[in-house]
Amino acid sequence: MKETLKLVVIGAGSSYTPELIEGIIMHHKELPVREVWLVDIEAGREKLHTIAELSKRMIAESGLPITVAQTLERREAIVGADFICTQIRVGMLEARKWDELIPLQYDVIGQETTGPGGMMKGLRTIPVILDICKDIEELAPDAWLLNFTNPAGMVTEAVHKYSSVKSVGLCNSPIGFQKWLSEFLGLPMEKIYAEFVGINHLHWVSDIVIDGKSKLQELIDYPQNYKASNVPFDSWDHRFLNALKAIPSYYLSYYYMTDAMLAEQKESAATTGSRAEVVKKVEEELFELYRNVELKEKPKQLEQRGGAYYSEAAVLLMRSIYNDSRDIQTLNVRNNGMIDFLPDDASIEVNCVVTKQGPLPIPMRKIPQSVKGLLAAVKQYESLTIEAAVHGDRDIALQAMVHHPLVPSVTVAEQLLDEMLEKNKAFLPLFH
Amino acid sequence: MKETLKLVVIGAGSSYTPELIEGIIMHHKELPVREVWLVDIEAGREKLHTIAELSKRMIAESGLPITVAQTLERREAIVGADFICTQIRVGMLEARKWDELIPLQYDVIGQETTGPGGMMKGLRTIPVILDICKDIEELAPDAWLLNFTNPAGMVTEAVHKYSSVKSVGLCNSPIGFQKWLSEFLGLPMEKIYAEFVGINHLHWVSDIVIDGKSKLQELIDYPQNYKASNVPFDSWDHRFLNALKAIPSYYLSYYYMTDAMLAEQKESAATTGSRAEVVKKVEEELFELYRNVELKEKPKQLEQRGGAYYSEAAVLLMRSIYNDSRDIQTLNVRNNGMIDFLPDDASIEVNCVVTKQGPLPIPMRKIPQSVKGLLAAVKQYESLTIEAAVHGDRDIALQAMVHHPLVPSVTVAEQLLDEMLEKNKAFLPLFH
Amino acid sequence: MKETLKLVVIGAGSSYTPELIEGIIMHHKELPVREVWLVDIEAGREKLHTIAELSKRMIAESGLPITVAQTLERREAIVGADFICTQIRVGMLEARKWDELIPLQYDVIGQETTGPGGMMKGLRTIPVILDICKDIEELAPDAWLLNFTNPAGMVTEAVHKYSSVKSVGLCNSPIGFQKWLSEFLGLPMEKIYAEFVGINHLHWVSDIVIDGKSKLQELIDYPQNYKASNVPFDSWDHRFLNALKAIPSYYLSYYYMTDAMLAEQKESAATTGSRAEVVKKVEEELFELYRNVELKEKPKQLEQRGGAYYSEAAVLLMRSIYNDSRDIQTLNVRNNGMIDFLPDDASIEVNCVVTKQGPLPIPMRKIPQSVKGLLAAVKQYESLTIEAAVHGDRDIALQAMVHHPLVPSVTVAEQLLDEMLEKNKAFLPLFH
Amino acid sequence: MKETLKLVVIGAGSSYTPELIEGIIMHHKELPVREVWLVDIEAGREKLHTIAELSKRMIAESGLPITVAQTLERREAIVGADFICTQIRVGMLEARKWDELIPLQYDVIGQETTGPGGMMKGLRTIPVILDICKDIEELAPDAWLLNFTNPAGMVTEAVHKYSSVKSVGLCNSPIGFQKWLSEFLGLPMEKIYAEFVGINHLHWVSDIVIDGKSKLQELIDYPQNYKASNVPFDSWDHRFLNALKAIPSYYLSYYYMTDAMLAEQKESAATTGSRAEVVKKVEEELFELYRNVELKEKPKQLEQRGGAYYSEAAVLLMRSIYNDSRDIQTLNVRNNGMIDFLPDDASIEVNCVVTKQGPLPIPMRKIPQSVKGLLAAVKQYESLTIEAAVHGDRDIALQAMVHHPLVPSVTVAEQLLDEMLEKNKAFLPLFH
Repeated sequence: MKETLKLVVIGAGSSYTPELIEGIIMHHKELPVREVWLVDIEAGREKLHTIAELSKRMIAESGLPITVAQTLERREAIVGADFICTQIRVGMLEARKWDELIPLQYDVIGQETTGPGGMMKGLRTIPVILDICKDIEELAPDAWLLNFTNPAGMVTEAVHKYSSVKSVGLCNSPIGFQKWLSEFLGLPMEKIYAEFVGINHLHWVSDIVIDGKSKLQELIDYPQNYKASNVPFDSWDHRFLNALKAIPSYYLSYYYMTDAMLAEQKESAATTGSRAEVVKKVEEELFELYRNVELKEKPKQLEQRGGAYYSEAAVLLMRSIYNDSRDIQTLNVRNNGMIDFLPDDASIEVNCVVTKQGPLPIPMRKIPQSVKGLLAAVKQYESLTIEAAVHGDRDIALQAMVHHPLVPSVTVAEQLLDEMLEKNKAFLPLFH
Repeated sequence: MKETLKLVVIGAGSSYTPELIEGIIMHHKELPVREVWLVDIEAGREKLHTIAELSKRMIAESGLPITVAQTLERREAIVGADFICTQIRVGMLEARKWDELIPLQYDVIGQETTGPGGMMKGLRTIPVILDICKDIEELAPDAWLLNFTNPAGMVTEAVHKYSSVKSVGLCNSPIGFQKWLSEFLGLPMEKIYAEFVGINHLHWVSDIVIDGKSKLQELIDYPQNYKASNVPFDSWDHRFLNALKAIPSYYLSYYYMTDAMLAEQKESAATTGSRAEVVKKVEEELFELYRNVELKEKPKQLEQRGGAYYSEAAVLLMRSIYNDSRDIQTLNVRNNGMIDFLPDDASIEVNCVVTKQGPLPIPMRKIPQSVKGLLAAVKQYESLTIEAAVHGDRDIALQAMVHHPLVPSVTVAEQLLDEMLEKNKAFLPLFH
Repeated sequence: MKETLKLVVIGAGSSYTPELIEGIIMHHKELPVREVWLVDIEAGREKLHTIAELSKRMIAESGLPITVAQTLERREAIVGADFICTQIRVGMLEARKWDELIPLQYDVIGQETTGPGGMMKGLRTIPVILDICKDIEELAPDAWLLNFTNPAGMVTEAVHKYSSVKSVGLCNSPIGFQKWLSEFLGLPMEKIYAEFVGINHLHWVSDIVIDGKSKLQELIDYPQNYKASNVPFDSWDHRFLNALKAIPSYYLSYYYMTDAMLAEQKESAATTGSRAEVVKKVEEELFELYRNVELKEKPKQLEQRGGAYYSEAAVLLMRSIYNDSRDIQTLNVRNNGMIDFLPDDASIEVNCVVTKQGPLPIPMRKIPQSVKGLLAAVKQYESLTIEAAVHGDRDIALQAMVHHPLVPSVTVAEQLLDEMLEKNKAFLPLFH
Repeated sequence: MKETLKLVVIGAGSSYTPELIEGIIMHHKELPVREVWLVDIEAGREKLHTIAELSKRMIAESGLPITVAQTLERREAIVGADFICTQIRVGMLEARKWDELIPLQYDVIGQETTGPGGMMKGLRTIPVILDICKDIEELAPDAWLLNFTNPAGMVTEAVHKYSSVKSVGLCNSPIGFQKWLSEFLGLPMEKIYAEFVGINHLHWVSDIVIDGKSKLQELIDYPQNYKASNVPFDSWDHRFLNALKAIPSYYLSYYYMTDAMLAEQKESAATTGSRAEVVKKVEEELFELYRNVELKEKPKQLEQRGGAYYSEAAVLLMRSIYNDSRDIQTLNVRNNGMIDFLPDDASIEVNCVVTKQGPLPIPMRKIPQSVKGLLAAVKQYESLTIEAAVHGDRDIALQAMVHHPLVPSVTVAEQLLDEMLEKNKAFLPLFH
């Protein structure tokens, strides 16, 4: 067993990085990282520097023997890595703004991980990730790639299909739900078994088992007046959940409450601006804090950024792979027949046993019958988007757009596709 | 081989029946029907009488040895039947009007074979058809049931799932397309092989082969200025068809042009009334003609009623079953793995070889990848609707409604379901 | 539609060829062959000449405008062909003798289409056929390849897997059974529907339907004292057939009566010699006849050669493809999910509708449950043999040999493989 | 979480029971059993008494608060049980002797868990186990049934198919292999991941992973001269294992070395007698020891009985279910698509994560291609045997016998079946 580990963070200029550094420090005993390489591109040079300095101060404070390196030369960092985390944002928040705002003009949900916005983000991101994978194949073929980059389901599937890199997709949504559940029920997380069925940002919790007994109905029946700010499902229609016999993920609001969500998005766009714009401001404030040389720990304000638990999920996964822990985590992996109506090579988001060979998915016991169609339709859109991204194929992109459940017609799909491809021109070399 | 056949028509008071009688007369040599039993319910007594009298005059004119019987006692007719056609309309055109108009109030497509309207028609119809099947199981276990009754895909699937009756679902849409193709290409129908992929009212023609060569691209590329009134696809976006590599059925307009179709439906509702109301008038005019004792043949005006070729399809099917003809027809049958992402027990609408044992589906060569999700989603809704109909289960009905691609949200689904179940109360004893 | 056709026969020096010529002459109206190219290798030069001369005399007698060409240059013949029949025998009857006799020394069935013998024939033949396919891909990409060459199931599967040539595998066993049935029941073949389930030389007739009614039980119950020489199943144990509810093909004797068949093979080997040696004598006698310049028709004696109906099957298939006849024939085609427990890319032998695009398999209604394991095991051996043949891989060949149901142990498999590979050295360049 | 548990042992008069009692004592902290109910039938009254007395002495020695009850009234014991272990032997060792000796007379492997012997044991045992299940359904519906009774694969599958009892099948073979591996490699068991593929008594170890790296090839390459008495595979042909890329279970000797194993069985039968007879003597000696009132612990001699680790496997499983431990164990569970060429409702023997809801199988990474056929064939025989047992159907039993890979012909199958059914008459009420 290797006694020291090299961790590479690609897109390290992200405001999330301090959380990851904090995780590395906290779990040092079980995960002996000795080198952290922070990588970004020229456009992120300044942010990268800020993050690297803060990271060094945090590690110095901890007294641990971990070195921090920063570089714009990705290949230099990747050589011999054990774990590589990607958290890149091709086109940065500006492109996210387009993902969110352009669809709204057509009365279509604007969101960076599904629908037309998710497609654009996929088209921008997949070729870049596959380039990174080529470097990993060459320079660190045994490394594990932990992908945080959205749309995480598509990106993970693209890596599985077009590369030999060992890769897992990560999302903070399952761990967030489990943390809430743990607090709500007053039980440690390992006492709770929540069964996840679905794909990234489109999953359902089909059962919650405590001490061998299902508690799902109790959760569905929970009094309406309960209103914790981070409860993912307090606004669901009770009669509907009762019929569904599952708890949908937060992202399913875009499908199950399309009209209300669209109204809310339009309202926000008209007042506070797109989510991208809000995040931009939060990030600026965070970097303001990060630049303070007195700061030697992750600032509290980072938690409000959204994406809580992202790095906790990453550190837990690295720890379990490294130690062959065989505990259960909810991850994005190759389907391999687990969900029998999706292709074998689709990525799915389900419970897995994490071994040193990587995560092994566990079969589901209760797949809600009524969601199969929706799940198949969105996965279809994802797989088509991957093909379109890899081949720069507009026809396939049109098929993906037309057949996405949130797009109302071929006419709208054609217009959206034309406008969005044009807007994203600089980031879609394969299409132009 | 039986030398004389007994044919039963259930719902014979329909204005379509004279076409069926004409078919029986024309194909008498290959299909030696000797007894036609026309059955209807009390509410249709008068129409049944009109139809029976016209049928008798038509047969008398032909000089053929066929007897016509009319009855309100279904069981009396069914005894010993060889072929049974169902063309019933539970709730009559009044209920169809609700199917078409109520959804429009929620900005949802109103249609009697898909979406909320299709669901209501399914809920009303399936228990009645299964009752008829119980009679057939007892009184004519060897008979073939030809189901014309819409929603034909759901009804056929319900019969396969909940009865031992030998049954086939029929639609005029595939034969209509093939007739048009034959005329357009100037070739006899048997020289053309059109591959159908999908389910009733949701199919794609994935290839058209003539003399072993694919002509699909030629049809997709056909000049835009061609405008025959009955061309099913002249209004499709050419760029889209090119990307899809298939020709969608007319009914796919509801999915691919939802916004335009909805606008058209609302416009019609505001001016000419619902399709149900238009049909009601056409039917009244037809029955006016039928009552004329001088009329001894199917009147030309019937062809404008819509549903052309329905009875031609039926007669061709009976003829091929009776003669073990082994020709290819497009029919609704049990999936049995033909479309591998749909359940084995789903009904599908595909090409079949018609043998005396019934139709055997032929595997498809080109299943368009991008339509799998939509197809799975609509089939899911159909299967859930069947369960809801058989068990009178509102929860399952809600699941079906929520997950139908044309329904925008749980809130709308709840409201639509409540209003439509209430309106249809008289025809939904299992729900009330 | 092409008005004249070019037919190429590879391995035309076979004694079967006159039957094929007779078929071409008889069906000339529906299958307007104008050029027949007879191809063989140097070692078959003399036989080829004899066959070509006889063919010319037969055609002259018919008065039809068909030209006959003979050549040792395969590529010259293939250019622009419409149909290509392969009936080659790599290693000739001498190698067949080894296939039959070597296994007997180990108390294992010796047979040229299954078991160790079938494997050797597959290893010798598959690379040669794939070479032919490369020529067809280049010189006649639209041609149909009709493969008569044994082991026909493996060869067909290899062509589907490793070439883009349009290909069908043919066997005289299904047509032979249907001919016998037709005579036995006194009914024309087109009035009988026999359902075939399985793979080449390992199929079961799972139903026999006449006028829509199953006659299978009647055939199973047929009085034991009936003893026609060509009845394929009069020696089956009645109680067993009754339990099986299917009629096994003749070749299943090797599996269901292994002990008796082995005894018979050893007895024959000790007295009349191997089947290869018997055939060698018959062939010599036939060629003696063929050389007679007065002979202008297929001699009666050819029918005793075995393999009756082979060329009838071929001519019927070409005719139906050419005319897009859409009749049902039993052929070897790609599985594509028809038999759900075999791989999609396995070749199977089942009923197909023959269109101009080629044969489309029809789903089976009654797959006998108890034969799944045997069928899977033999198909596994076939697929492994193909891999071994293509890659010259001894390890895979060993796996195939060990896992064949007729091979009793790893030890015997190792010895047989070593001895047979050594013996076949001259014909297995990829292995040596 | 229940703080005290009730354990029922059915067939407790078995000589194995003291090992189970020892396990209960050793793991008392994690598995708080308070009541052990020992159940047997009238014929086992005396043995049951001996075992109960020994168990009481062992528990008294441990000082733990566990009560021991003995009864011939099964239902009395089952009421409210938490865990129920079945270790019955219908027909006792006498019937096992027939399973082993009768097939030898036909030159067929005689074995109590596969082939003709396994079938007879299945036919005798399955109806009795299903009767026990009816009692459990009524009297202890939440209990877990741990089935040790052979043929464990068939029995487990029968319970899953014909009962609602929560059930797992257990075998000592996987744990035995893992123990050996652990000792051989000098590593604790939890550091080793051995992937099991297959069904009970017919599995392959397709990979062995330590610290994320495959060690399979190293094990396959292990020097031939190594000869530990309990190494399961030192006698396998090295070239064969290298081609197979997996390690077969000991029981695969019956298939891969049929000739040698048959010779050995015949030799043993002629000298030491059948395995049943050997075991009978060992058991008599063990009971002699058990009756000694000074004995207060499991005697060493029990370990020579065979079946080592059986009760360790059982206690580990109960402990993990009780504590929701989520560790990985190799168990017999419902397939549910894990092995895609076997039916969903087949029992398979694979690695599972053991939760309080029961074991969840983990998908396999490396299914050896060449074994699919053999696996399918034996599973087919098992499923047919279950049907035959449940319905007392001789025809289905014949199908199972004929299609078992170790049975050479229909003739032998017929004779074996007749003779064995007759001999087992007293234990097969459904057949007679």
